[in-house]
Amino acid sequence: MVFRILQASLSFYQHTKIIHPPNRLMPKSAPPFLGVDLGGTNIQCGLVGQSDKGEPEVLTRAGTKTRADKGSDAVIDRIVKLARKVLDNAGVKAEQVGGLGIGAPGAIDMGKGVVLRAPNLGWDNFPLGKRLKEEMKLEVVVDNDVNVGAWGEFKAGAARAFDSSLAVFVGTGIGGGLIFDGKLFHGHHTTAGEIGHTVIKAGAGLGRRTMEDLASRTNMVKHITTLIEAGHPSKMVELTGGDMTKVRSKLLATAFKKKDPLTVKVVQEAAAIVGVGIANAVTLLSLPCVVVGGGATEALGEPWMDLIRKSFREHVFPAELRDCKIVASQLQDDAGVMGAALLARDRVLNELKSA
Amino acid sequence: MVFRILQASLSFYQHTKIIHPPNRLMPKSAPPFLGVDLGGTNIQCGLVGQSDKGEPEVLTRAGTKTRADKGSDAVIDRIVKLARKVLDNAGVKAEQVGGLGIGAPGAIDMGKGVVLRAPNLGWDNFPLGKRLKEEMKLEVVVDNDVNVGAWGEFKAGAARAFDSSLAVFVGTGIGGGLIFDGKLFHGHHTTAGEIGHTVIKAGAGLGRRTMEDLASRTNMVKHITTLIEAGHPSKMVELTGGDMTKVRSKLLATAFKKKDPLTVKVVQEAAAIVGVGIANAVTLLSLPCVVVGGGATEALGEPWMDLIRKSFREHVFPAELRDCKIVASQLQDDAGVMGAALLARDRVLNELKSA
Repeated sequence: MVFRILQASLSFYQHTKIIHPPNRLMPKSAPPFLGVDLGGTNIQCGLVGQSDKGEPEVLTRAGTKTRADKGSDAVIDRIVKLARKVLDNAGVKAEQVGGLGIGAPGAIDMGKGVVLRAPNLGWDNFPLGKRLKEEMKLEVVVDNDVNVGAWGEFKAGAARAFDSSLAVFVGTGIGGGLIFDGKLFHGHHTTAGEIGHTVIKAGAGLGRRTMEDLASRTNMVKHITTLIEAGHPSKMVELTGGDMTKVRSKLLATAFKKKDPLTVKVVQEAAAIVGVGIANAVTLLSLPCVVVGGGATEALGEPWMDLIRKSFREHVFPAELRDCKIVASQLQDDAGVMGAALLARDRVLNELKSA
Repeated sequence: MVFRILQASLSFYQHTKIIHPPNRLMPKSAPPFLGVDLGGTNIQCGLVGQSDKGEPEVLTRAGTKTRADKGSDAVIDRIVKLARKVLDNAGVKAEQVGGLGIGAPGAIDMGKGVVLRAPNLGWDNFPLGKRLKEEMKLEVVVDNDVNVGAWGEFKAGAARAFDSSLAVFVGTGIGGGLIFDGKLFHGHHTTAGEIGHTVIKAGAGLGRRTMEDLASRTNMVKHITTLIEAGHPSKMVELTGGDMTKVRSKLLATAFKKKDPLTVKVVQEAAAIVGVGIANAVTLLSLPCVVVGGGATEALGEPWMDLIRKSFREHVFPAELRDCKIVASQLQDDAGVMGAALLARDRVLNELKSA
């Protein structure tokens, strides 16, 4: 089906030799693809083509507010306008584009392009793929936003030298995506990768003390706030003017870099928990590479990565898995846009290959 | 290569229609395969053919001591003698057998059939596959013993209705094996499945409090012993004549079934931990099925399974994964022999298909 629709615009593909590893780099004559990162607050859209070296590159990008409160029609409209703006900025026509990939927050039926449930957007069983395809007249691939970010890092970022990887994003929550043998792994209910919800510290009553409960940026700030309220001194009081509700990753990183003892302690504990969670995944899956990203990681930088690596090495089994590379994300804000575009590209190339 | 070696004895395979799902059942005219379960203490060997219903079946089996202390040559000799005895008992000649599969305890290079490291046997880089092939003049497939058990349950046991599963075996230790989309998953260092070494209860200092540390039969007995020594009353004292070092799974189950409060408490806590560990794996991998086996599971039975299921449901995320089937192993002692034989059979069938 995809093959037929794209046959006209992409027929030159059939004469293009695919290099090995397949799809890792784009053939010189490949069309660009649109990538959309749909979040509860913001939408990012980019056009992904290739650099002079033949590597995938975000050629141009733009963003806007999601405004999910206005309803799904309005969101579709905003995505379409944003995509057209990106194409205009790049001087590219929609007919020249190979397809559009989009990452949405929530549970997705990838085969049907349906968002099964997205609390952030208030969507249930919303046919996102079909709607965008009608509007854009492009082949559309839909996946979960975290999977799409993991795919970006795998194909064009920190994990591109590996054939399997786990990506873990630490921000307001903790999400993850899994790639085995060059393929995104979705699992039975398409929810695979939810490392943030694995239990790291089962208490006496075995309550759900998950990685996210213990180590997300939200919970680091909550922890610091509780300690300040309990009378512990902290530079955070001065940095925030006493309003801890304003603390995001950058301010957390500022206090960490200024060596505020309270912040350092909380960040160290969170990194240790992230390291345990990653060790558990690597122990279970014998992985060669884990990418760590997200707002907290970008802000806290290499000292945070080193704390995670230390805890990882202490907890992974067997010892030979200590050689698993724990690497910081490289694409940062571009991971979603890049991953979504490359997911669409890979789908189209695979359909052409199997046609 | 395999194809060429087996061409003579197996040429009828080429005229055999493989039913769907591939290899799940054996074609009527299929030869039997030998399966060997090599442990640190015992060796089990069985000949696997098919039942009247066309399902894989252990036709005959026998066991012997491993005696690893006598060296690797002696172990090979014992395996070969045992396999020949099984063939004699079945009235089958080696030339009529399609191949031999063997599960060994430790890290395995499956491609080369080499046991990289098996502390229980005192082996390092031992070419088990090559040695057995020379002796038996049969195609030999080597894998890890736990993977082989997981494969048995997947192909012919509790998980045979599913396309992916995790098997968890609770005994003196806790081991596991993973199957994704009908294939054993080995991972980067071929160590995948080590769920027993995932950390469930990271303490204040984040020491390694793993599933195995907390919930193996060994640790249940240790825990009961400590509590008895601390003065808690228990029927175990009477059952063991005061010697807790004799407690194996059966005695543990006897005290559990007699509702000894101390034993019930310890078993409940262990089951809750196993449930958390399984929930973590299912949360990460979105699995449809988990098989729970091993000596402790066989002895403690359905009440143990129900405790595990309860904890699993409380800890898994998202809620829709509560429908993941947590099932007791069906093959029990036969899982290793069956899995090893079927692994050899699948390898041979696949080689023939791709030849």
